[in-house]
Amino acid sequence: MKARYIASAVLVVVIFSTIAMGRVDPLPSWAQGPTKSAIIEFVQDVTKPGGPDYVRPQERIATFDNDGTLWVEYPMYTQVLFIFDRVKKLAPQHPEWKTKQPFKALLEGDMKTVGASGEKGILDMAMATHSGMTAVEFEKEVTDWLATHKQSKFKRLYTECVYQPQLELMTYLRANGFKTFICSGGGEAFMRPMTEKTYGIPPEQVIGSSVVAEFQIKDDNPVLVRMPKINFVNDKAGKPVGIYQHIGRRPILAFGNSDSDMQMIEYTLAGEGRRLGLFVHHTDADREYAYDRKSHVGTLDKALDQADAMGWIIVDMKKDWKTIFAFEKSNK
Amino acid sequence: MKARYIASAVLVVVIFSTIAMGRVDPLPSWAQGPTKSAIIEFVQDVTKPGGPDYVRPQERIATFDNDGTLWVEYPMYTQVLFIFDRVKKLAPQHPEWKTKQPFKALLEGDMKTVGASGEKGILDMAMATHSGMTAVEFEKEVTDWLATHKQSKFKRLYTECVYQPQLELMTYLRANGFKTFICSGGGEAFMRPMTEKTYGIPPEQVIGSSVVAEFQIKDDNPVLVRMPKINFVNDKAGKPVGIYQHIGRRPILAFGNSDSDMQMIEYTLAGEGRRLGLFVHHTDADREYAYDRKSHVGTLDKALDQADAMGWIIVDMKKDWKTIFAFEKSNK
Repeated sequence: MKARYIASAVLVVVIFSTIAMGRVDPLPSWAQGPTKSAIIEFVQDVTKPGGPDYVRPQERIATFDNDGTLWVEYPMYTQVLFIFDRVKKLAPQHPEWKTKQPFKALLEGDMKTVGASGEKGILDMAMATHSGMTAVEFEKEVTDWLATHKQSKFKRLYTECVYQPQLELMTYLRANGFKTFICSGGGEAFMRPMTEKTYGIPPEQVIGSSVVAEFQIKDDNPVLVRMPKINFVNDKAGKPVGIYQHIGRRPILAFGNSDSDMQMIEYTLAGEGRRLGLFVHHTDADREYAYDRKSHVGTLDKALDQADAMGWIIVDMKKDWKTIFAFEKSNK
Repeated sequence: MKARYIASAVLVVVIFSTIAMGRVDPLPSWAQGPTKSAIIEFVQDVTKPGGPDYVRPQERIATFDNDGTLWVEYPMYTQVLFIFDRVKKLAPQHPEWKTKQPFKALLEGDMKTVGASGEKGILDMAMATHSGMTAVEFEKEVTDWLATHKQSKFKRLYTECVYQPQLELMTYLRANGFKTFICSGGGEAFMRPMTEKTYGIPPEQVIGSSVVAEFQIKDDNPVLVRMPKINFVNDKAGKPVGIYQHIGRRPILAFGNSDSDMQMIEYTLAGEGRRLGLFVHHTDADREYAYDRKSHVGTLDKALDQADAMGWIIVDMKKDWKTIFAFEKSNK
């Protein structure tokens, strides 16, 4: 028996050494090419003890946008679809919505008017449907919705419509001592129920937008009640602020997919030493979607123009990702 | 050589087993008694696989107040002394302070008037001295100050005036899969430069009060500028809110020392399953300080009255802590 244990231990050592020596590809869904090489060289450089680019494990912070960077955001952000469903579900308790825009338009199926209400309209509906309940109650609403609703093109749960290359990248980073965070314009409380199971990212490493919360005693029970008031918008110039307030350290790697991620990546690259900033470019209409400059979601326009001058890496989904979704294989 | 490696491996296993089996005391600075037993039983119960009180490692969240719970807060909160020093240092650039209270009183050494200005006065001085610079500049100010100023009674750096029993407890919790957080009314940006080295707690696990920050481009450099406006006050009913916004999960252990920690501990204990809530009671005028109900810092009054009914553990510093500071031994 003892000999077997020792043999097992030796085998484990051999496997880890093989991975460490690069004989096993840590990013099998990434195609060979300059993008993949840049990522692997970066990780090797910042983890090489005594090397000129070495970064202490505690400072190996990586931040990822969520919508369009880790999971599908097209043709509409998942949370917006959740908001629409919440409005419909809660409508019987809100007779005033029958005459109030954009609630009225949504309930009548007039999506053109809903769209014309813009960010302000979506925000009004978010506030009305994301507050007035306890933190625990809202978490249950989100969990139930994500467990039962499917993405329109792939007919899969939203939590299955996550990019396999990014799951591999985050696993690879964590295996190299990185701490991975989400830094998204989406709601913190909307993402947190799914990030641990889906991405291996615990709720405390999710930075997002939030509403004000209030501590109250209800029926002798201390609860947190979500209020209909914005606490923080973690988008655009808000992203580096959210990172400062939440992490208190500058990331050394940041990954986004739209112009909304430019400030996060600028801030990341402005630190000393080796840094990496990347954008997903959605170029695969067949396997996922193709959209950029004129898109109504995940607009990627200025970042494309500035990428070369700024040293940002544009990841070409079609060329750089051999596999996009884990479910592709079973679909074939 | 192989035999030696195997012998080393066996030794490591024996050492860890000895610790796991409780043969090595994980809390040597805690006196034997009901408090120490309650802590150890709690940790054993929530980590026992298959046991009725088992908690998954991901959910083993412990939050600690800082002032008076992890480091000395008497006769005045460290950050308030920092604020006073900052006012004096910045006074030449602020001629208007010569006539503006409580700045005028502080500059004239009239501490009675400063004290009478209350929380509002301190907050005004905090805003004036904690904003108007970048995040990086402020971090340097704090680091320099903490490296050069000493606590009045112990003549030691503030970062040395930390409670040895609490360092042991946090190490013990982390060794048992817990994630330790600070949840303090103090400034996040004031604590973060010292928590990693002093407590083993990285900046991203520090929750505190904060000012609004703004992303700006200065001289082509993206920076975060601290604004003279409160972002969040992480005190009293703000503590469970800060925990929700930052961690998104309810702690299973919370440790405080004053009435300001009551809501954090109430919230912690209101969750399902085994929970532990504790308060440090400062009872040792000789080795540290003795203060509670009538104290101007760290008031412990209502919590003392309610502790029994609420199931809160009151840690009697004099009886429960054999050693308070690591430097005690070298002083003898």
